[in-house]
Amino acid sequence: ELGNFSEDCFKINPDYVRSFVFESKLMPSTWIVIRIDGCHFHRFSDVHEFNKPNDKQALDLMNLCAVAVLEEFQDIVFSYGVSDEYSFVLKKDSQLYQRQASKIVSAVVSFFSSVYVMKWKDVFQEKDLKYPPSFDGRAVCYPSNEILQDYLAWRQVDCHINNQYNTCFWSLVKLGKSKTEAQNYLKGTQAREKNELLLKEFGINYNTLPLMFRQGSSIFRVKTENTAMLESDASSIVKTETKIIREYCNIIEQSFWEAHPSILN
Amino acid sequence: ELGNFSEDCFKINPDYVRSFVFESKLMPSTWIVIRIDGCHFHRFSDVHEFNKPNDKQALDLMNLCAVAVLEEFQDIVFSYGVSDEYSFVLKKDSQLYQRQASKIVSAVVSFFSSVYVMKWKDVFQEKDLKYPPSFDGRAVCYPSNEILQDYLAWRQVDCHINNQYNTCFWSLVKLGKSKTEAQNYLKGTQAREKNELLLKEFGINYNTLPLMFRQGSSIFRVKTENTAMLESDASSIVKTETKIIREYCNIIEQSFWEAHPSILN
Amino acid sequence: ELGNFSEDCFKINPDYVRSFVFESKLMPSTWIVIRIDGCHFHRFSDVHEFNKPNDKQALDLMNLCAVAVLEEFQDIVFSYGVSDEYSFVLKKDSQLYQRQASKIVSAVVSFFSSVYVMKWKDVFQEKDLKYPPSFDGRAVCYPSNEILQDYLAWRQVDCHINNQYNTCFWSLVKLGKSKTEAQNYLKGTQAREKNELLLKEFGINYNTLPLMFRQGSSIFRVKTENTAMLESDASSIVKTETKIIREYCNIIEQSFWEAHPSILN
Amino acid sequence: ELGNFSEDCFKINPDYVRSFVFESKLMPSTWIVIRIDGCHFHRFSDVHEFNKPNDKQALDLMNLCAVAVLEEFQDIVFSYGVSDEYSFVLKKDSQLYQRQASKIVSAVVSFFSSVYVMKWKDVFQEKDLKYPPSFDGRAVCYPSNEILQDYLAWRQVDCHINNQYNTCFWSLVKLGKSKTEAQNYLKGTQAREKNELLLKEFGINYNTLPLMFRQGSSIFRVKTENTAMLESDASSIVKTETKIIREYCNIIEQSFWEAHPSILN
Repeated sequence: ELGNFSEDCFKINPDYVRSFVFESKLMPSTWIVIRIDGCHFHRFSDVHEFNKPNDKQALDLMNLCAVAVLEEFQDIVFSYGVSDEYSFVLKKDSQLYQRQASKIVSAVVSFFSSVYVMKWKDVFQEKDLKYPPSFDGRAVCYPSNEILQDYLAWRQVDCHINNQYNTCFWSLVKLGKSKTEAQNYLKGTQAREKNELLLKEFGINYNTLPLMFRQGSSIFRVKTENTAMLESDASSIVKTETKIIREYCNIIEQSFWEAHPSILN
Repeated sequence: ELGNFSEDCFKINPDYVRSFVFESKLMPSTWIVIRIDGCHFHRFSDVHEFNKPNDKQALDLMNLCAVAVLEEFQDIVFSYGVSDEYSFVLKKDSQLYQRQASKIVSAVVSFFSSVYVMKWKDVFQEKDLKYPPSFDGRAVCYPSNEILQDYLAWRQVDCHINNQYNTCFWSLVKLGKSKTEAQNYLKGTQAREKNELLLKEFGINYNTLPLMFRQGSSIFRVKTENTAMLESDASSIVKTETKIIREYCNIIEQSFWEAHPSILN
Repeated sequence: ELGNFSEDCFKINPDYVRSFVFESKLMPSTWIVIRIDGCHFHRFSDVHEFNKPNDKQALDLMNLCAVAVLEEFQDIVFSYGVSDEYSFVLKKDSQLYQRQASKIVSAVVSFFSSVYVMKWKDVFQEKDLKYPPSFDGRAVCYPSNEILQDYLAWRQVDCHINNQYNTCFWSLVKLGKSKTEAQNYLKGTQAREKNELLLKEFGINYNTLPLMFRQGSSIFRVKTENTAMLESDASSIVKTETKIIREYCNIIEQSFWEAHPSILN
Repeated sequence: ELGNFSEDCFKINPDYVRSFVFESKLMPSTWIVIRIDGCHFHRFSDVHEFNKPNDKQALDLMNLCAVAVLEEFQDIVFSYGVSDEYSFVLKKDSQLYQRQASKIVSAVVSFFSSVYVMKWKDVFQEKDLKYPPSFDGRAVCYPSNEILQDYLAWRQVDCHINNQYNTCFWSLVKLGKSKTEAQNYLKGTQAREKNELLLKEFGINYNTLPLMFRQGSSIFRVKTENTAMLESDASSIVKTETKIIREYCNIIEQSFWEAHPSILN
């Protein structure tokens, strides 16, 4: 009866097969961070000849993808990106996919990847995408605002430390040193020494480098209130609008969060 | 010292922040199945005007992506696709990403999504991709060959049942019935009745429909042994080659697995 | 060489065997509640002829066990017991067993069970323990004080509702009704009606029943500061002492937590 | 209305509170091993003056508890004990507590602990139990017979290695060496050397020590078929009986499993 299938298929018990599925639900009332990282992006950036230490176009593309992710997933309230990684923060009471970890992670990383390929030519008009990029992802929960802010601060400190190191490293390489020589040269140097090296040897004032390179990119929603005066009776109505904006700003200091109270509340 | 960062960043304890990461490792020595499903593909297939009940090009694209996944992830031994879903089977002793569920799922689903966008124009020359497609994914483990085969058989039975229903449904709709009328008409009908309906009302012999629609697509590795005769001394050497092939075949019956013993062993 | 073992034992790879162990670590910085429940205590209370609806001695024994648990596990800051269940709250930053769920749950439930048997005769001088009691347990995490308090309030509301119902039920049964008749009689009655029934039919003023029965038992640590005046120089020193105390009190209202700020801080 | 509770309790949403409960279900169709270990048993054996390196009575008590566990939990097919640890194997398709890890682990460890206290005086007539013993536990799943047997073999090899070491160690200590001296003396010695030490220095032929010390204890179910001849018509009926037996045997070699095929099938 079943087309050209034998009766073997009647032996299958779907409930039994399905019983192997396990659900990993993320704890309710906690901040969910979806962090994605480029897979083998060392090679990817070589093949696609990204500028070192930072490729503005590559970062712009990452940011375009992140904006698209925030447009697609309404529950994401904040995101922070640096290099080939991006962290997306879902609001505490999000019920996206009933908080199933693998569904949320996979849907976000899949959408991000699709946009990356679709928008490649918008950013890299002169370069072809030579093979499919991919990202891995994972979900982590943070039970309080403080710990969430610590997480994001940690990523920004990492951005800074890596950027300072890489700026020195690639300056030395461009000067003619081998990668190993540059590595050895920088081993054990402090932040101040690196800044001095940049200034004295290469005439680079670290603090004047583009903010995007030094601070990473923060993309988040802001609520704006527009007050419209009605001519008829001179009364006013307030309309709340939500916009997605991108900033290269210091998210370690409390002032950022105080300036944007709607993100965490 | 740290660029324009205040001393706030020294308060962050990376070990503490990292302690919130949890690892969900998949049980060793079990078959890992990564199953991906299109997100909101009902709308996606409407917007992109896919043929109903089956769009050959859309399925071809899914299959191209699956082949690319098998080329990228050497540990995948078998995959089965139907409609907008695909199941990828990793070998029992795979150590991919140390068997971390979220890494494996996200890397596979991300790569699949990238390829889907990159190869769209290869398949749909006449159609533009209107917005980024996305897939969700999850991992399930099966402890024995029997249960893995039951899982795959279950997917193929589902393929058959859905295809038979959808072929009837869309034939009725093309005839002028509304979707609700078609639904009601088919409610409670058996497989035999559906086949009769197709034959009598629409002149469709279900069993002559394309195998890809009725059986789904199996993409897997086969090992072939090539014996080369050396001219010099008339001795022969055997070279094992692994190829990725695509078949529209019955995977419910044991004969398939007996014909391809290298898949599960 | 290995005693009378054959060489088979050299084939075992302990690392491989150990790789099947999975660790389920509880999220850092969240309240851990270990909840234990008597296994088959309906039968246990019948066999040991516990008074219905409440057996003061049985509850005293549960409370003795809970005190012992708090003495043994320093990280437990609060516990609440009703009937054959007990909830133990570990402080947010507890590192007990590195927060491994199964270790914490099993150690607490095992210790509780041992004490239950050891102290049985202290409470039930006239009754023998006829077979080994057992309890099951589980761990749940709560990310904030509010949700932890909601959990505890929920248990106390349950205590109240069950106690009011059971007081009516067993009064009716003692009056000669069958259990089914008593059940039907009470079906759908409201709290006020149950109180009226008790008062009018049985002369029981619900609000004068023992607090332990109506409110359950709270066992927790309190810090007391003792100021000692030194004779020598008339200076004083403050010694902080921690005591474990047992109260039958309302833990739903904020006033309890305000009166004991050291529990949650 | 609710006794002396304020209206605060109406604010609690039980579904929300319950949503924090997570279930960790053990994979279907895999062997579940519940392994329990004495908590701080180094101290426990000192306080209760257990004989070193092995206390026959202490091991007898562990074995009595294990027998009681098998009588209580019908799904346990095999158990193996050594020192203060015991491993209980549940049959592959057990549905005990719907395979919820924490329920199974806690119920087994709680029952074991209760029996340990209840039966103490049966074994140690001359010794009082000075404080409540406790055990921790955990569940591990094994997907095949081979890996389960490897796990059990690993425990028995451990038993042997520890017993040989401890027999040497305590012989040296009894001779007057300090614990540190004994430790240093044995550092790096091979199995053969330890056996020679025992024989030459202490006149102990390791292989004649009690089997319980050298092999650990295996407690399991055996099915026996009793054929009863009916006098009336000389026909016979076969009755299958299941008995729990205790053996000190080699479970590393296949012959044991072949002799008791009903354990794993």
